[in-house]
Amino acid sequence: MTMTEIKIELTTNKKDKPDINNLGFGRFFTDHMFVVDYTEGKGWHEPRIIPYQPISLDPASKVFHYAQTVFEGLKAYLTVDNKVLLFRPESNFKRLNASNERLCIPVIDEELALEALKQLVEVDREWIPNAPGTSLYIRPFIIATEPCLGVASSQNFQFIIILSPVGSYYKEGIKPVKILVEQQYVRAVAGGTGEAKTGGNYASSLKGQELANKDGYSQTLWLDGREKQYIEEVGSMNIFFKINGTVVTPALNGSILHGITRDSMIQLLKAKNIPVEERQISIHDITEAYHNGTLEEAFGTGTAAVISPIGELKWLDERIIINNGEIGEVTQMLYDTLTGIQNGSIPDQFNWTIKL
Amino acid sequence: MTMTEIKIELTTNKKDKPDINNLGFGRFFTDHMFVVDYTEGKGWHEPRIIPYQPISLDPASKVFHYAQTVFEGLKAYLTVDNKVLLFRPESNFKRLNASNERLCIPVIDEELALEALKQLVEVDREWIPNAPGTSLYIRPFIIATEPCLGVASSQNFQFIIILSPVGSYYKEGIKPVKILVEQQYVRAVAGGTGEAKTGGNYASSLKGQELANKDGYSQTLWLDGREKQYIEEVGSMNIFFKINGTVVTPALNGSILHGITRDSMIQLLKAKNIPVEERQISIHDITEAYHNGTLEEAFGTGTAAVISPIGELKWLDERIIINNGEIGEVTQMLYDTLTGIQNGSIPDQFNWTIKL
Ligand SMILES: Cc1ncc(COP(=O)(O)O)c(C=O)c1O
Ligand SMILES: Cc1ncc(COP(=O)(O)O)c(C=O)c1O
Repeated sequence: MTMTEIKIELTTNKKDKPDINNLGFGRFFTDHMFVVDYTEGKGWHEPRIIPYQPISLDPASKVFHYAQTVFEGLKAYLTVDNKVLLFRPESNFKRLNASNERLCIPVIDEELALEALKQLVEVDREWIPNAPGTSLYIRPFIIATEPCLGVASSQNFQFIIILSPVGSYYKEGIKPVKILVEQQYVRAVAGGTGEAKTGGNYASSLKGQELANKDGYSQTLWLDGREKQYIEEVGSMNIFFKINGTVVTPALNGSILHGITRDSMIQLLKAKNIPVEERQISIHDITEAYHNGTLEEAFGTGTAAVISPIGELKWLDERIIINNGEIGEVTQMLYDTLTGIQNGSIPDQFNWTIKL
Repeated sequence: MTMTEIKIELTTNKKDKPDINNLGFGRFFTDHMFVVDYTEGKGWHEPRIIPYQPISLDPASKVFHYAQTVFEGLKAYLTVDNKVLLFRPESNFKRLNASNERLCIPVIDEELALEALKQLVEVDREWIPNAPGTSLYIRPFIIATEPCLGVASSQNFQFIIILSPVGSYYKEGIKPVKILVEQQYVRAVAGGTGEAKTGGNYASSLKGQELANKDGYSQTLWLDGREKQYIEEVGSMNIFFKINGTVVTPALNGSILHGITRDSMIQLLKAKNIPVEERQISIHDITEAYHNGTLEEAFGTGTAAVISPIGELKWLDERIIINNGEIGEVTQMLYDTLTGIQNGSIPDQFNWTIKL
């Protein structure tokens, strides 16, 4: 992807905007999308913003068969004074390139990707919802488009960015979630693709997720694939525990995602002088802390909800109730601080936000 | 998918046939394809054979993001007397449904799928190549088409079958391959999706495959994800060893594919009274057998090549040369017998083939 100009073709047929009170997550999409093609020998070429439209692919395209694909997820926020903020977008494009490396996908030019993203959000700016807690979810993704069934890396790719206005996760105030610790299924293993943001990780998680939902739990907590005892992460969140005054989160061990919200929380905790540790944590550490009364708080972190307090963990036959099923003090402070930085009501001492 | 009639729309614009000496694998496709849609609440509906054409999907379709997809691979062969044989197609549709179960995809009606496949091959019969070793590769696959970014099973799917005339794997006679035993990367782990034929398994294998190729090896031999010492399978083949007169192959342990060629080989060996065992095999068992001179043969099995004799395995710094890098006696016998059954020159005592 060279630093050529991004061509812009505006739609002549704008869609109706969805009801801002019924946005949900990832169900509505804006009027435009960004696309750039990769061809072996030619590199990334023809970056363009075009009307949102179907992708037309040969049925033999590798993405349909071998899931050679990576993606990212981040958000644009409308501030209290009507400015548009992007939250740490460079981190997302850096992570996209790390995923590319694992999936044998050619790296993208992170600067051009950011430039493309800014222009796209600018073009569809009127789609950024302004109700409290709402935002514009941004989904960059890359798919393998070569029409060939040989199991080998594709010669052609498309890098696409689409935008979706999304609702607040917490319409009726923050509500702690109940999470099932999965014993049978495995999401990822060291040496696999767990650290990359690639479709296969999510495909493999659907079954556990479905069983958890049937049981009344909103998400799955995954244990490591080798010994099934070390805590990895939740469906689409990293996880933190506050045990005896110290906040702990699983270390980046090769099989969990390097969450950008996770990293932000660690920096926030350090700035607030709250002890925080990245280390291996077994499910037994958690049950032990629960039994001896030192398990004080638990929460998940991710772009979608920022923070999800965890009110209950189910492990085998035991229901571990955390902080009486209510949001903890540190969890609330982290949520308020990070969302404050994102909506511009709290000064951004970390330089995380980019103003459009 | 109900037993309604399959609608057929023939192309008015037939493609030129490719050069039969340059078919390669999965690069050319026939004039038609089979498609059937799934909609939540309505089930599988509108089975149809239509001209081969691009698939047009919303960019938010789940297959692009979460790799909710499964596939199969089998072949149709032209016999010496110009009949068309399918090899164990019911086994493929049964396995497709097993994969569906793991990936939260609604099961298909196996009988209708077989009927659809037969009709499709009949329609494109003139595409089945007749040179020795060539065949018509059949690729059934299912993709999640719901345009929604929530991580949850799709509400809509398409089940598609495409056909590709493929060349002989062994134009200049069977040539043993060199295979690298992978130490760093992992393809699958117990509790994951290794047993299912789903894109993510192949995406995760690309990196190891690429490194093996750079090193002069044609494929990767995967070890188990937990201890990295038990032999699983090769890129797209199951693996067998002949050690001291007994043929051994890794047992179906949950993380390897239930290969249909593998199963056929086991049945053939039993019928020929050659001892065969399915069991856990560590890479140390193999190096030990090599050092004490009892490692007699090794081969991979799969639809694409039927059998690939293995002439060399590389493990750490050791090059394990098998049978002087030549095809072994049992390997050759199995190859001749199975390809003979497939091309109709050897009677099919197992009832594996279906005549069109
Ligand atoms: C598997 C997984 N873990 C963690 C996260 C959290 O990452 P981030 O904070 O960058 O959104 C996500 C989602 O984005 C995810 O999909
Ligand atoms: C991972 C894997 N293992 C084994 C096989 C062999 O299976 P089958 O003999 O059914 O073709 C294949 C390919 O088809 C495969 O993709």
